[in-house]
Amino acid sequence: MRAVDIIRKKRFGGELTEQEIGFLIKGLVDGAIPDYQISAWAMAVCYMGMTDKETAALTLAMANSGDTVDLSSIAGVKVDKHSTGGVGDKTTLIVAPLVAACGVPVAKMSGRGLGHTGGTIDKLESIPGFRTELSRDDFFAQVEDIGVAVIGQSGNIAPADKKLYALRDVTATVESIPLIASSVMSKKIAAGADAILLDVKTGDGAFMKTPEDAAKLAAAMVAIGNQVGRQTVAVISDMDQPLGRTIGNALEVREAIEVLRGEGPEDLREVSLVLASHMLVLGGIAGDTDAARRMLETAISSGEALRKFAAFVTAQGGDPAVTEDLSRLPQAPLRVPVSSAEAGYVLGIEAEAIGLAAMTLGAGRATKDDEIDYAVGIELAAKPGDFVREGDLLATLYVRADDMRAESAVQSVRAAYRLGVEQGEPRPLLHGIVQ
Amino acid sequence: MRAVDIIRKKRFGGELTEQEIGFLIKGLVDGAIPDYQISAWAMAVCYMGMTDKETAALTLAMANSGDTVDLSSIAGVKVDKHSTGGVGDKTTLIVAPLVAACGVPVAKMSGRGLGHTGGTIDKLESIPGFRTELSRDDFFAQVEDIGVAVIGQSGNIAPADKKLYALRDVTATVESIPLIASSVMSKKIAAGADAILLDVKTGDGAFMKTPEDAAKLAAAMVAIGNQVGRQTVAVISDMDQPLGRTIGNALEVREAIEVLRGEGPEDLREVSLVLASHMLVLGGIAGDTDAARRMLETAISSGEALRKFAAFVTAQGGDPAVTEDLSRLPQAPLRVPVSSAEAGYVLGIEAEAIGLAAMTLGAGRATKDDEIDYAVGIELAAKPGDFVREGDLLATLYVRADDMRAESAVQSVRAAYRLGVEQGEPRPLLHGIVQ
Repeated sequence: MRAVDIIRKKRFGGELTEQEIGFLIKGLVDGAIPDYQISAWAMAVCYMGMTDKETAALTLAMANSGDTVDLSSIAGVKVDKHSTGGVGDKTTLIVAPLVAACGVPVAKMSGRGLGHTGGTIDKLESIPGFRTELSRDDFFAQVEDIGVAVIGQSGNIAPADKKLYALRDVTATVESIPLIASSVMSKKIAAGADAILLDVKTGDGAFMKTPEDAAKLAAAMVAIGNQVGRQTVAVISDMDQPLGRTIGNALEVREAIEVLRGEGPEDLREVSLVLASHMLVLGGIAGDTDAARRMLETAISSGEALRKFAAFVTAQGGDPAVTEDLSRLPQAPLRVPVSSAEAGYVLGIEAEAIGLAAMTLGAGRATKDDEIDYAVGIELAAKPGDFVREGDLLATLYVRADDMRAESAVQSVRAAYRLGVEQGEPRPLLHGIVQ
Repeated sequence: MRAVDIIRKKRFGGELTEQEIGFLIKGLVDGAIPDYQISAWAMAVCYMGMTDKETAALTLAMANSGDTVDLSSIAGVKVDKHSTGGVGDKTTLIVAPLVAACGVPVAKMSGRGLGHTGGTIDKLESIPGFRTELSRDDFFAQVEDIGVAVIGQSGNIAPADKKLYALRDVTATVESIPLIASSVMSKKIAAGADAILLDVKTGDGAFMKTPEDAAKLAAAMVAIGNQVGRQTVAVISDMDQPLGRTIGNALEVREAIEVLRGEGPEDLREVSLVLASHMLVLGGIAGDTDAARRMLETAISSGEALRKFAAFVTAQGGDPAVTEDLSRLPQAPLRVPVSSAEAGYVLGIEAEAIGLAAMTLGAGRATKDDEIDYAVGIELAAKPGDFVREGDLLATLYVRADDMRAESAVQSVRAAYRLGVEQGEPRPLLHGIVQ
């Protein structure tokens, strides 16, 4: 078998066999196939696509290229959740303890943030004392014990995906539905869950700008799940504006706790409940999403969800008192208001611009080696549909110092607000379900 | 400027600027841009193509990536000739002395053969004593003195093309009209000719299998010539069967001498006269191809063309007596007949199979390091249109020994003949002119 023949076959639209895809991925990992052949193949895939069978074969080859986690010793249907990435997306912080409180075991690996979107691991680490590196035994024991554990992704999960993604990033081959779908699913499959709930974001702040593209990506990932025997459901949710009102690690933990208390912004609460209800169904705890929703609402109103969160924080070394006293979370020394330069209805808030402004303040990383300031971030005062007068508060910046970076963020956040004379039609929060 | 942005622009169908293309080619040569980015870009070009402006910019960037030859000190319009490669294509051996005899100076670099097609340099070196490495001064002096010199391509002509071609070869990105066109033209432009006559082959033994594809390649190369100020004409000639009757180095020199004597096979003579007549027009020696043709026929019938060939051989250290005594050329010790297994009309002779059979006998190289046996080769006795009975001679093999290789070549040559009960329509020798 020669790599050049496989590239040629794909270039002219042929369907690669499982053996051919396995040969490429093995060669990618062990270095037998040079990067220039892999990148040429990836570009051909961008144009010619892949069949469901090819995509599943690629996913499995990448999933099996490194460590795989066997969760079978944990009782119950383990349901994983994955978001394609959004601004202000703290749903995992809410959903993980919430479904655990209802009886679905959550044994989850999460990632760190890069660019304009944050990562669950960074958010959790903003809780004083919280540790995201557990031994395998402690991880399993914690899930058995309290039903939920979230750790950072191990270095050797799907190394083929890591290598391929790095190559795609510098060869303009990131935008490809089968390559994105197999990248996500390879890590989920290696992480060992029995079922997978996907939150595919769409809109300005998401990778998939249109609901149509998001639906295509969702369908590709669900097809992979079906091909490899992991039940998979995808929720397509809106990311045209940030989710909830806070962006920044400790600020997002605060808002997640508020939702678990039965408070918090309506959009964040709704998306979290939809995601969690599908997880209860996937986990076999509820017969349908309506029944699931009632269970979830009870878990919140009874305080069980918040207690599960506190137990989860405690188990991983964090300070559980944050659930009662939000001021124990890292606090930024200064607040800078962003006021509106004109009057009008808020029509939209560009999510990507808000995410980048938060990154500028220190809430995220521009490069992998940047350090995060957990306390800083942005809180949105006005949301789409609201009317603001000139000088009214649009948002509050939580900053370390009132410096050039803060000034730049003020400008960016103000520019991210789109105002108009008439109240626009609100965008739907959810765009569909693929299963 | 970042390579990834340039790749992305091409991926989504944008037109690259001269600066962007120059950046890629400079980075390719000096190593600043890794091969995996170049190969991804090349694959994107395979799908999205390039505009005439982009193709010209790529050609010039590659032409200027190494040594360039300045022929301006030689009087007259220097006309170069390039064939896209064929089996039995010895036209340069005929055309170079022929147009020189009519007053067009020929200062030419040629290549060696690889795979199923032979190279002019190998053919010339089959003449005892012939040297193809001349100093720059000797090369120029010889053109001034007798009007014709042919040398091997210097190591540092268009190194960017050499690197890019090597990468395309292993990434299934060879088949791309703009990449092929710029590869050919970059070397011709670096070699310094004022005008270029292209012989674009089409058919089974050529890279361009259909006349339509050959016409597209021809048009792309002519467009480059026009963009960079080198007048360029392309003749599209047939390569569905070998040209002439001989394949193999000394055998091809013999046949070239026969044509210069006014003898030789009609197809080879005709293609040579068409190519040469366009060169006389490009060189400003004749007003049109009809007038040119009369000059060329006179040069042959008067013996001037053959005398020019003898002077050319003498000047480069070879034995000029070969023009009078063909037996002074290397002779193979054995001849093996290939007889027909059935009766019928010859409908076609697969050129590529014949070329590969000749290579098997030692007339060509499978890899760059193979040594060539100048004496061996194939002489076709039956050509399309001929009727053969069972047992009649199809071809004669000139071999070093009657061994397994010879036996294998007999089988291949016999299989390369397509016979039928009815005399087929002959394929045209020429498929068009692009200028």
